[in-house]
Amino acid sequence: MRCEVVAVGTELLLGQVVDTNSAWIGEQLALAGIDSHFQTKVGDNFERMVECLGLAVSRSDAVIVCGGLGPTQDDITREVLAAVMGVELVRSAEMEERIRSLFGSRGRSMPESNLRQADCPAGASFLPVMPGTAPGIRAVLDGSLVYLVPGVPWEMEEMMRQAVLPDLRAHAGVSSVIRSRVLRTWGQSESGLAEMLADRIHALDEAGNPTLAFLASGIEGLKVRVTAKASDEAEAEQMLRSEAVRLEELLGPLVFGADEDTMESVVLGLLARRGTTLAVAESMTGGMIADRLVAVPGASRVFRGGVVSYAGEVKHEVLGVPPGPVVTEEAARAMAVGVRALLRSDASVAVTGVAGPDEQEGRPPGTTCMAVALGEEVTSLDIQLPGGRQQVREFATISVLNMLRLRLLGDEGSG
Amino acid sequence: MRCEVVAVGTELLLGQVVDTNSAWIGEQLALAGIDSHFQTKVGDNFERMVECLGLAVSRSDAVIVCGGLGPTQDDITREVLAAVMGVELVRSAEMEERIRSLFGSRGRSMPESNLRQADCPAGASFLPVMPGTAPGIRAVLDGSLVYLVPGVPWEMEEMMRQAVLPDLRAHAGVSSVIRSRVLRTWGQSESGLAEMLADRIHALDEAGNPTLAFLASGIEGLKVRVTAKASDEAEAEQMLRSEAVRLEELLGPLVFGADEDTMESVVLGLLARRGTTLAVAESMTGGMIADRLVAVPGASRVFRGGVVSYAGEVKHEVLGVPPGPVVTEEAARAMAVGVRALLRSDASVAVTGVAGPDEQEGRPPGTTCMAVALGEEVTSLDIQLPGGRQQVREFATISVLNMLRLRLLGDEGSG
Repeated sequence: MRCEVVAVGTELLLGQVVDTNSAWIGEQLALAGIDSHFQTKVGDNFERMVECLGLAVSRSDAVIVCGGLGPTQDDITREVLAAVMGVELVRSAEMEERIRSLFGSRGRSMPESNLRQADCPAGASFLPVMPGTAPGIRAVLDGSLVYLVPGVPWEMEEMMRQAVLPDLRAHAGVSSVIRSRVLRTWGQSESGLAEMLADRIHALDEAGNPTLAFLASGIEGLKVRVTAKASDEAEAEQMLRSEAVRLEELLGPLVFGADEDTMESVVLGLLARRGTTLAVAESMTGGMIADRLVAVPGASRVFRGGVVSYAGEVKHEVLGVPPGPVVTEEAARAMAVGVRALLRSDASVAVTGVAGPDEQEGRPPGTTCMAVALGEEVTSLDIQLPGGRQQVREFATISVLNMLRLRLLGDEGSG
Repeated sequence: MRCEVVAVGTELLLGQVVDTNSAWIGEQLALAGIDSHFQTKVGDNFERMVECLGLAVSRSDAVIVCGGLGPTQDDITREVLAAVMGVELVRSAEMEERIRSLFGSRGRSMPESNLRQADCPAGASFLPVMPGTAPGIRAVLDGSLVYLVPGVPWEMEEMMRQAVLPDLRAHAGVSSVIRSRVLRTWGQSESGLAEMLADRIHALDEAGNPTLAFLASGIEGLKVRVTAKASDEAEAEQMLRSEAVRLEELLGPLVFGADEDTMESVVLGLLARRGTTLAVAESMTGGMIADRLVAVPGASRVFRGGVVSYAGEVKHEVLGVPPGPVVTEEAARAMAVGVRALLRSDASVAVTGVAGPDEQEGRPPGTTCMAVALGEEVTSLDIQLPGGRQQVREFATISVLNMLRLRLLGDEGSG
């Protein structure tokens, strides 16, 4: 089955909004084993929408039209579908009632224009799932399935998951499923990983399934995506599991997590398992490490807090860094020790360095001094990170947390 | 003139990469006064690319094809253009030389396949600008202009700016320019702003130019975009300037900045102007305020640092918050006073509250207590913010900085 996506909205063409909906739908179709050959964006214009929908129906087995289902005058996707089908719009009394009651339950008065959303082309039907206030529509047109879904991302996603994708799969009689898993790594470049995995990549290329792809994702790590095609979900999961095990053997502790894991969530998990609390001392990262940690729900079990010692004096006065230069491993170590004592945590990390654009203490932007205090031992590193101000700060954040992770793993290994 | 964009790449259809290139090009075309009616994504497939390009040429005066110009076997945009033109590819000795010398100067050996990039359809020509290693191509096909540009964003953008857009403008004989300006606001909902601007919106709707649009943008504020169409740049700028002045009169201090301003950059600017240094004390925001401030180059002129007092004990022990509940205005005030003393700053802001998902001290997620210490006066607020954990933390961040901004403006007004 071939399915294509038509995204509706002049704001998409003008670049005021990036069309992430089509990307999301494309991914879901791929995971469902449904081919997707084209995606089109078109403005809120009747003739051009008719042209797009007509073309899509002529060349694909299914079409998902996203957007233009709201209550305002420029929401004309319903009218366009009716025109292409050559039928009239019919107002549904049932849907009208439902829309009225939606507004009633929120204690708001409803503009009459909202009732346009109760219109449906004759012969088409409303989708059985309505997460927001815009009903979705399903029609069959010249043998092709057509779905109208809202442009509001969460409404569209709910409707796709609960109604459109199951319906598509049922009609496609899809006999294969595609699943993927992402291994997240830190500490090697893309070409470094490719070299470590060269034999395995060669073997997978020969076999063709599963496949591997690399994706550098900044503070989210360098991702290795494994994609498997199989006859059912269990088989796909089994393929992914065994390939992930094999890759983890080859990459060792470079792999810090999988799928939705982040460096922060992994480090917080390791700390929680051993009941170790954490504090952070940040200069160039300026609160980013703390922010990323606190973004993880449940961080309060182990994260006590931190000091952002941006000004040199704060490093000396609050954290007890000895007088002298502050872009050094010694300063980072003193920061780590100082914040651990001040906040009474078991462990700490510290970063000082030069985010740029200017150099500092004669050292260039990208210079990063990091330290980890854990137990009796304080370790430190002096590294050079690439990129502009924001990228350097992000790389420093994931790098120092990775340093702590490796220390925690080392402790586990030796303990 | 009508111009459409064709983005090439199977990874775009699969949703592995979001197509931000088309959005960027769409925006540039709009700013150049060139109409854009369609954008299409197509995979790396010869027949389907031929179909897409043929359709685009048949309905538009110009087509920009983005991607598929690399050296590997799946980069076939050159072949597709040659096929649609009905001509052969010709290897350019000059370009071949240039590609070889590019590699030579980087001291790398060049795979022979790279020479494919020296191929150009007979009758087409290379673009005069080549920011990376992929040459762009320009052709005239059935009276339409066709441009091939690389998919690597910075290469594409350079080539568009320096070669494609000037060429398009010259051919279009565009007699109007479109420019827009964004006013950034905080403190009112979208409907609240619309109500305050009702008369003006009505007048603009009648006149049709300039136009207004609202865009809620989270921590970036609620944006009011003014778009003006004029015969030349100076006239457009004049229209934007006078409309911005009018809107600022109507909205008053709700407007915190314009275009690339952020709440952080504006607050840092106000502080720098009066030589006032700043410290922050953060609980629920957990480093986000500091992180946003440090992201602004030059923050070190006024920002001294902060304390992330995530655990209750850190609030009491490090910041001197009195024993008792910590989700209160009193606690926020004590945090502000404490961090100002500890970091020896002139001013400070503090936030404590409940980010969720769980309630705390009997108060629901979204509860936010904020304080500002400036001069002798410490002010505080207790507000309820909407949304999930991350959104609550972002709204708290922009809200407390806005509170400081209003205090600084008040001081200026009274001083």
